[in-house]
Amino acid sequence: MIDRRTFNTLALAAAGSLSLMNAGQAQDTDRSKGPKFAMLVHPKMIMQDLIGPMTVFNLCMGTNHLVWKDATPVASELGISVMPTETYETCPRDVDVLFVPGGLAGTIELMQDSETLAFLQDVASTATYVTSVCTGALVLGAAGLLQGKRATSHWYVRDMLTHFGAIQTEGRVVEDGRVLTGGGVTAGIDFGLTIASRLRGDDWARRIMLTLEYAPEPPFIGGTPEQAEADHVASILDRRGRILAEAERVAREAGKRL
Amino acid sequence: MIDRRTFNTLALAAAGSLSLMNAGQAQDTDRSKGPKFAMLVHPKMIMQDLIGPMTVFNLCMGTNHLVWKDATPVASELGISVMPTETYETCPRDVDVLFVPGGLAGTIELMQDSETLAFLQDVASTATYVTSVCTGALVLGAAGLLQGKRATSHWYVRDMLTHFGAIQTEGRVVEDGRVLTGGGVTAGIDFGLTIASRLRGDDWARRIMLTLEYAPEPPFIGGTPEQAEADHVASILDRRGRILAEAERVAREAGKRL
Repeated sequence: MIDRRTFNTLALAAAGSLSLMNAGQAQDTDRSKGPKFAMLVHPKMIMQDLIGPMTVFNLCMGTNHLVWKDATPVASELGISVMPTETYETCPRDVDVLFVPGGLAGTIELMQDSETLAFLQDVASTATYVTSVCTGALVLGAAGLLQGKRATSHWYVRDMLTHFGAIQTEGRVVEDGRVLTGGGVTAGIDFGLTIASRLRGDDWARRIMLTLEYAPEPPFIGGTPEQAEADHVASILDRRGRILAEAERVAREAGKRL
Repeated sequence: MIDRRTFNTLALAAAGSLSLMNAGQAQDTDRSKGPKFAMLVHPKMIMQDLIGPMTVFNLCMGTNHLVWKDATPVASELGISVMPTETYETCPRDVDVLFVPGGLAGTIELMQDSETLAFLQDVASTATYVTSVCTGALVLGAAGLLQGKRATSHWYVRDMLTHFGAIQTEGRVVEDGRVLTGGGVTAGIDFGLTIASRLRGDDWARRIMLTLEYAPEPPFIGGTPEQAEADHVASILDRRGRILAEAERVAREAGKRL
């Protein structure tokens, strides 16, 4: 392993090859030539659903567009608000990645919001990748973008994807052609790195991993319902019972409109 | 494994025990009785450094204070700004957790900012836990809060902790008495869950894990310099060479003032 101090010594000895590396980097960091990301932001979204992927996208050295129907701050579940940089009208139509984060209360509203669904259909028609994390998949589904596609979502709503003609699929990141969906919340980092490898290659994605020190060590086992204690699964399903029933009802209705 | 549909059937049959669970929850969600978190926000901070831990803290059902020297929006590396909820004057002095996120450019400034260092010393004097993620540890160190303590930081600055009398320690989350420090960026989720287990117990922390579907599957190996290819380590150290040299200089000077 090379640590920083060893590196500084080596760097002095290898100034030639390093200046080549720097020249490569200078080209890379012309963001206007990099990939374009259109990220939907929406009221009550889960902030981590946005920030996990966006942190990785940002290191792909492209342009990041945060999009909402108007240019007013959008409050997340943490109370922290995000100011959109584009509206549905101004968002570019030639993006590499269209991305929808989750947040159950918000996605229930969006599944019924024809303006948002039309916007997603429009941008998706030319986007290279159509993507989501967590319950964001419900919105892609309601927009008809998951029909016939294998897709995943937060474990507690994944089966609802069938209402949209999707093939519900277990998996941290599920890829089916140009549709990439991630599981619940923290899956956004694994998802983001997968996108980075598609857009910039594996070496670039690995450098991002190292920059973000992504070598997770969960202090417990139990991040999926299969691994968790039944009591914990039951407790969460109980606490969220009402909103999950509402999501199910709305997803079923949205599926009928497709 | 219990899925949502099975659960709904079981729930009907077991309404008695579930209403007990709900009663428990109603008490839990009185946030004013829950733990208090004081999170420093600072210009150029890495948004994921804040949001990873905060997402977990928020599910501890306490109160979240975002603190900066004045009540103006603080811009992160992503361009997304965070509005502080408290200033150094108004921040409560009886918090359970004092937390400093990272962001190298910002933490270099904070190591030299006597107002911030005095604030941290003051809140730390009564806080139950004194904590950081990523390069936030440099700020705790400059405030004299790591003297004689085992601590970690982002891999590329970890050795600088010795300037503050800390014992640099490898580890995703390093605990030494009331001082808990996390590694770079994404370590914040592991760190947050560790804090949750200390404050609310293991079962609560496990429910948070399941809610956030925290069962990471990095698409590559290589999130630490030990696991990564030497070329990738060298590339990052080269690109960040100038700012790392500046951090080293400032950390050494700050250490001398302790």
